[in-house]
Amino acid sequence: MGIGVDVVDLERFAGVVEKTPAIVDRLFTKAEQTSAAGHQLPLMSLAGRFAVKEAVAKALGAPAGMEFHDCEVSNGGAPQVTITGTVAQVADELGVTHWHVSISHDGPVAIAYVIAEQR
Amino acid sequence: MGIGVDVVDLERFAGVVEKTPAIVDRLFTKAEQTSAAGHQLPLMSLAGRFAVKEAVAKALGAPAGMEFHDCEVSNGGAPQVTITGTVAQVADELGVTHWHVSISHDGPVAIAYVIAEQR
Amino acid sequence: MGIGVDVVDLERFAGVVEKTPAIVDRLFTKAEQTSAAGHQLPLMSLAGRFAVKEAVAKALGAPAGMEFHDCEVSNGGAPQVTITGTVAQVADELGVTHWHVSISHDGPVAIAYVIAEQR
Repeated sequence: MGIGVDVVDLERFAGVVEKTPAIVDRLFTKAEQTSAAGHQLPLMSLAGRFAVKEAVAKALGAPAGMEFHDCEVSNGGAPQVTITGTVAQVADELGVTHWHVSISHDGPVAIAYVIAEQR
Repeated sequence: MGIGVDVVDLERFAGVVEKTPAIVDRLFTKAEQTSAAGHQLPLMSLAGRFAVKEAVAKALGAPAGMEFHDCEVSNGGAPQVTITGTVAQVADELGVTHWHVSISHDGPVAIAYVIAEQR
Repeated sequence: MGIGVDVVDLERFAGVVEKTPAIVDRLFTKAEQTSAAGHQLPLMSLAGRFAVKEAVAKALGAPAGMEFHDCEVSNGGAPQVTITGTVAQVADELGVTHWHVSISHDGPVAIAYVIAEQR
């Protein structure tokens, strides 16, 4: 079992996106950039999804070579992660079979925490 | 097993309570509004208890219809939750039997995180 | 199983250290004050390690008498805790055998969360 927490300062995150808009496509798949209803997600929601990706990486021991697109965050009700490629490979090596994910944002920060479980 | 995290911006929470004082009774039972020693809890402690309620809801999948009074937060040493009514019903359906709760507040935020466990 | 979360306001932490520099030695062992590469850790990293110590105490039920030096935080890749003395005694009584630790800091805060596990 592994755990991960990540906090993202919303103001800093907004500043990075404003200076380097292309980073959004590097961090998030097209599907991740839109809500279940098809709307463009607000920045604070993207910050929450970024926090999930970072927390997943920490829960896996943060090995080099994992790609952001290989951990896709969706939110049909409760947040979920779908892992592929580089991330799925690490998870398989560690025997991780289930992910628990929670996100929150308010005031200055977005926070995610995850538990990687072996069953 | 389910997990939940919630962060509450203390300034925003204080603003809501100042504008709508009646919200305190809607969110918290009388017992929750006082310390073990019988004193009125400071706002930051209420914010922490509110964060626990939100985190519990997330850990249960955040179904509609759960009432705030049905998840009562106490703190005799370590924080605990007592669930009843709408919240107990969802927990029973999911087979949740144990709750682990932790709260922290400092600077701008209060944070709670919970794990709902099935034994 | 026990869990603990702790958030540390970086500005407040920096203020305490500035007013009372001796607190650094009281909170952290010499090894904890330096990185794996032998450099003095920046304040925000110390704040993260302090958050881990507080979160460990909460996961153990926050009994009186635990000493900060008896929960040593290291970070060779993923963060880890080494417990001794007062902290190891409480963990032994509770049957805790494994620790899961994660730290994050950004913007105004550092956050740690831990899970104490019995196997």
